[in-house]
Amino acid sequence: MATVLLAEYLFTRLHQLSVGSIHGVPGDYNLELLDYVAPNGLCWVGNVNELNAGYAADGYARIKGIGALITTFGVGELSAINAIAGAYAERAPIIHIVGTPNRATQDARLLVHHTFNDGNYRRFGQMHAHVTVAQTSLRDPSTSPEQIDHVLTQCLLHSRPVYIEVPVDLVSAPVLAARLRCPIAIPDASPNPTWDKALTKVLDIIYAAKQPIILADGESRALDIVEDVQALIKSTNWPSWTTPFGKGLFDETLPNFHGIYKGTFDDPASRDFFNQADLILCFGPHWSSTNTYDYSTIPKTDASICFTDTEIKIGDQILRDIPARLAVRQLLQKLNLSKIERYDSVNQSDLLSPNRRPLTFSDVAPQEPITHANLWNIFSGYLHPDDIILGETGTAGHGVRELVLPPRARLFAPATWLSIGYMLPAAQGAALAQRELQQARSRDDVLTPETKSGRTILFIGDGSFQMTAQELSTIIRHNLNVVVFLLNNDGYTIERCLHGLHEEYNDVARWRYMRAPGFFGAEDGAFTAAVGTWGELEEALNDERLMGGKGLRMVELRMGREDVPRGALVACLERERRRVEGVVTNGKERK
Amino acid sequence: MATVLLAEYLFTRLHQLSVGSIHGVPGDYNLELLDYVAPNGLCWVGNVNELNAGYAADGYARIKGIGALITTFGVGELSAINAIAGAYAERAPIIHIVGTPNRATQDARLLVHHTFNDGNYRRFGQMHAHVTVAQTSLRDPSTSPEQIDHVLTQCLLHSRPVYIEVPVDLVSAPVLAARLRCPIAIPDASPNPTWDKALTKVLDIIYAAKQPIILADGESRALDIVEDVQALIKSTNWPSWTTPFGKGLFDETLPNFHGIYKGTFDDPASRDFFNQADLILCFGPHWSSTNTYDYSTIPKTDASICFTDTEIKIGDQILRDIPARLAVRQLLQKLNLSKIERYDSVNQSDLLSPNRRPLTFSDVAPQEPITHANLWNIFSGYLHPDDIILGETGTAGHGVRELVLPPRARLFAPATWLSIGYMLPAAQGAALAQRELQQARSRDDVLTPETKSGRTILFIGDGSFQMTAQELSTIIRHNLNVVVFLLNNDGYTIERCLHGLHEEYNDVARWRYMRAPGFFGAEDGAFTAAVGTWGELEEALNDERLMGGKGLRMVELRMGREDVPRGALVACLERERRRVEGVVTNGKERK
Repeated sequence: MATVLLAEYLFTRLHQLSVGSIHGVPGDYNLELLDYVAPNGLCWVGNVNELNAGYAADGYARIKGIGALITTFGVGELSAINAIAGAYAERAPIIHIVGTPNRATQDARLLVHHTFNDGNYRRFGQMHAHVTVAQTSLRDPSTSPEQIDHVLTQCLLHSRPVYIEVPVDLVSAPVLAARLRCPIAIPDASPNPTWDKALTKVLDIIYAAKQPIILADGESRALDIVEDVQALIKSTNWPSWTTPFGKGLFDETLPNFHGIYKGTFDDPASRDFFNQADLILCFGPHWSSTNTYDYSTIPKTDASICFTDTEIKIGDQILRDIPARLAVRQLLQKLNLSKIERYDSVNQSDLLSPNRRPLTFSDVAPQEPITHANLWNIFSGYLHPDDIILGETGTAGHGVRELVLPPRARLFAPATWLSIGYMLPAAQGAALAQRELQQARSRDDVLTPETKSGRTILFIGDGSFQMTAQELSTIIRHNLNVVVFLLNNDGYTIERCLHGLHEEYNDVARWRYMRAPGFFGAEDGAFTAAVGTWGELEEALNDERLMGGKGLRMVELRMGREDVPRGALVACLERERRRVEGVVTNGKERK
Repeated sequence: MATVLLAEYLFTRLHQLSVGSIHGVPGDYNLELLDYVAPNGLCWVGNVNELNAGYAADGYARIKGIGALITTFGVGELSAINAIAGAYAERAPIIHIVGTPNRATQDARLLVHHTFNDGNYRRFGQMHAHVTVAQTSLRDPSTSPEQIDHVLTQCLLHSRPVYIEVPVDLVSAPVLAARLRCPIAIPDASPNPTWDKALTKVLDIIYAAKQPIILADGESRALDIVEDVQALIKSTNWPSWTTPFGKGLFDETLPNFHGIYKGTFDDPASRDFFNQADLILCFGPHWSSTNTYDYSTIPKTDASICFTDTEIKIGDQILRDIPARLAVRQLLQKLNLSKIERYDSVNQSDLLSPNRRPLTFSDVAPQEPITHANLWNIFSGYLHPDDIILGETGTAGHGVRELVLPPRARLFAPATWLSIGYMLPAAQGAALAQRELQQARSRDDVLTPETKSGRTILFIGDGSFQMTAQELSTIIRHNLNVVVFLLNNDGYTIERCLHGLHEEYNDVARWRYMRAPGFFGAEDGAFTAAVGTWGELEEALNDERLMGGKGLRMVELRMGREDVPRGALVACLERERRRVEGVVTNGKERK
C-alpha cells in the first residue's frame, strides 16, 4: 500500500482544495512542517506576526474560497486567536495548523517552553474549540488521514475555521495515501421527503406575492449560493437589496439592484417600499446589529422567507434539513417566471438612492477640503471591474457602503466582528488570492484585459492602520498590487461619535504615515501622496503611477476629526454632540 | 451609607494597589469606563493595539508589582489573550478589565457586533479562565465590590492575571464605598502546628551540610521573597546562582554570587561544584526546559530543599501549606550563622565563570565586525545601577544572560513563555513603571543621582522587532527614556539554529530600521546609529546623546546571520549545521 509522509498528506489535501499559499509565522514547533510547504507546491507567505497572519488568511479565504494558517504551539496560536474568532463570526474558512511538541514530550508532561509550566498541553486546543467548528490533535499515523479529512470537510461545510495540531515527530511519519484519491467534498444532504412540499409552499407564496423583494445577505458567500441568488435577482427583476456584509457579492449594475438597504437610515422611498413588501426573500441572512442598522433592516417575519445553511424559514415556521445550496438551486430551476409579479422599470429607478449618483471632481471645488459627503461618490468613478475594495471598521467602513461597484468587484465592509486592524492584513491576503486567481485565468487563457486589471484597494483610518501597519512589509515583500488610502482624521473618529467626542483616550499618536513604504522596505520610488483638498486628490487619482501602477502605493487623505459619511454615523455623532453639550443628559444607551 | 460609582470603586482599588497607569486600547464597550481613569488619579496609556498593551502591562507589572489593562469585549480581549497567557506562565500580576455590552443586551442575547452572532456572551470569559487565576462578570452593584476585591486578592496572592467584565451600564452604578477603607491584602496563612517542626528540620539539614549552595530562581519575585533570599545569600556567603528567570532580582556584585547556573553548558568548575553540593536551597523554582538548560540545572532531589508558593519540599517530602513568604522570613530569623558551613573567599572566585570578565573596546579591533562572543562583556561596562535591561527571545535573550549587572539593575530575559515581540511593548511598560517609581522616590526625597539615572535598555532581534514595532510610538508619545539596540542578523537566527539553517521561511523582510523613530513620530533629531564594527559601536556608545540622552534612541547592530552567543545556542547551531550537511541524518528531536 502506498504511503506518503503526514505533512505531504496534509499539504496535498490543501492543494486539492485550491489553497495556493499558506499564511503564518515560523516557530520552533512548526519548522519541520514548513520544510514540506514549498515541495508540495504551496507558497509560504511568512507574515510579520500571527494576528496579522490570521487576518491575512481570512482575507485570502474570502476571495479564494479557503485559506490556511500555520502557527506554533501556545504563543503563536494564541496571538492569532482573535483573527480565527473573526473568521468564525463572519464565516471565513481557515485551516489553522499548529505545530506542537512531539508526542513523547506531551506524554511525559514535560515542562517545556510555550506552556504554563504545568504539564497541561490541552489548554490551547480547548480555547480554540470556542472559535472553530472542528478540532483534531493528531496522535496516530493510522488515524491521521481520516482525522484530517473530517476536519477539512467541516471547514468546507460550515465555511468556518478548523484547528489541527501536528506534533513535531508526526510531521514525517508515513501514512496511507489511499484516501487522497477521493477528493474532500461537502457531504450531500440526506434526501428528505419534505423537500418537495417545502419548495411547493415557497413557490406558492412567490406566485401569490404582489410586492415581492429580495434581500441578499453576506452569508450567501459561505453557503455557496451567490451565483444562484444572482440568477434569481436577474431573472425576477424584483427590487433587490443587500447588506454591508453582502455588498460586493452581487452585480450592482443591474437596474433592479439598489445597494445596501439601510433601514431607519435609508431614504423614505426605499424604506416605504421595503416595509410594504408582502414577500421578502432573504438569502444567507446575518442579523447582527451592525449588519442590520440596529436590527432595522430585518424583514417582518410574517412576510419573509429565509434561506439559511440548513433551513428554510417561512415566517415563523422552520423547515429543517434543507441546505440553502440545494433549496436555492431547486427554486431557480422550478420557478415559473411567467407566474411571478413583474415590475416595470419606472418603479425601480424610484428606489435608487439619490446618494448613489456618481460624482466627478467637476462637482467639487478644488481648493475645498476633502469631505466624506462627496468622497465615496467620486471614488466610484475610479473603480475597475474585478477590483477588491476593503473598507476598515470606522468611517472608511461606513464610506465604502456608498460606493457603486463595477462588475465582479468584491468588497470587504465591516459586518459583525469589527476588529480594527483586520483590513490591512486582509488586503494582503486578498491581493495574493486575487493574483493567484488571475494567474490561473491567465493559464486558462480566459483572462481579458479587464480581469487582468483588478486591483486591491484599501481604505483605512489612522487608528486602525497603526494596529497592524507592519503587514505592509509583506505586501512589499511579495510584490502585491495594493493601493492604500489612509484616512487620517487624527484619532478614532468612529469612537468619538460613540462616546468621548473630545476625550484624549480617542487620540492616537501622530505618525509620519507617508514614510511607511520606505520604512517597511519598499523601493524609495514607491508612489505616495498626502492630500487635503479635492484638487490634490484629483491630481493623485489621475496620476497613472497610483491607480495604474504596481506594488504598494499609498495616499494619505487628511480629513476632519469630526467628518463622517452620511447615515448612521451622522446620527451617532449628533447624539454624542448633544450629550457632550449637556443637552441630552441621559441619552439612550448603546447596545 | 456612602456610595461611589462602580468605576470609581474599581479605579480607587487599583490606585490603592499602586497602579499608576492603565494600559489598553479604547473600544466601544469600554469608552464609558475610560471616562473615570484620569479623574481617579490614573494615567491612561493608550497603546497601539491590544496584544502590545497586554505585553506592556506585563512589563509594568514586573517592575511596579502590579499592572492593569483595559480592552473591549471580544475583539480587544482576544487580541490581548496571548499576553495574558504569558503573564500567567511567568507570574506577572495583571488586572485585565474588559468593557462588555450592557446587561439588557446580554440578557436579551442580542446579536450585537463583537459576538459570534449566536447570543452567547460567555465564550470570551471561558477562554480567559484558562489564562487567569480568577474571573468575575459583574452583574449586580450590591455584590460588585466584594467580587472585585476577591479577584484583586487572587491577583496579589498568585501574582498572576485576573479578569473582570464590566458591562457598560454598570460603569456609573452606585455601589457601597465602605469596603474601600479596608485595603486589599494577601490573606495570612492559617497557622499550622507543623510549621515549627518543618523549620527545625530545614535548619538541621542546613547545619549538617558540608557543601551547601543556593539557587535563587525567578518565581522569588512573584512569591515576594526576593529581599529575604538576598539577605540569606549575603549572610551565609554560600556560593549562589540564579537562572535566566531569576537574573536581575539578586545583587550580582556580591563575591559569592556567580550569575546564572547553566548546567551542561556551564564551565566544569562550576558544574562540578554544583553537582557535588550536599545541599541546594532553591527559592522560587521554575523548572521549565528553557529556564533550566533542558532540565540540566534542576538540583538532584535528595540534596535539595525547595521553597515554593505554598510548600517546602525536602527531597521527596512535601510539607504543605507553608507559604514561601512565611517560611523564608522565619528561616532568616532563626538561622544561627555560627552553625553553618563557611567558605573562604578563594573557593568562591574559582567558581566565577571566566566569561564574566568585563571587556572594553581595547580588547577588540575597531575595524572588526561586532560578534556575540565579546558583545555582552563589553556592554556590561555601559550599564548603570537601576537600569532595566530587556533581552528578547532569540540571540539577544541568550546574550543578556552574560551581562554582569550593577546594583539594583533589573533584567527581563526569556524564561518560559518566549513569545517573540513581547519585549518591545514590555520595555514601554517597564520604562513607565520605572519613571513612576523614580518620581515617587523623588517626592520622598530619597532619590540619589544614581537612582535617577536608571534607564530602560532593550536588546531585540530584527524578527522580533517587526512583530510589535509600532509600540515605539507609545514610547515616543509618553516621552519614555528607552534605548533600543536592534540586533539585525537578517532573519530568525535562533530558529536557523533549531531547524532550517538556510531556509527561506526563516528570513524576514528587510526594513530600514533606523527610520523607525521618524516614522513613528519622534522629533527628527532622535538619536539613531547603524553600526557594524567595534569601532562604530564604541563611537555610538560613547556619544552622550545615546546612553545619557532622553526619549527614544536606537542603534542598529548589523551582525552575522549565524553569529550566536556562546553556550546553548552554539551547541544548537552546530547540531543543525551537521544535520544540514548530512553528517547527522537522524538527529535527536527537540522537545
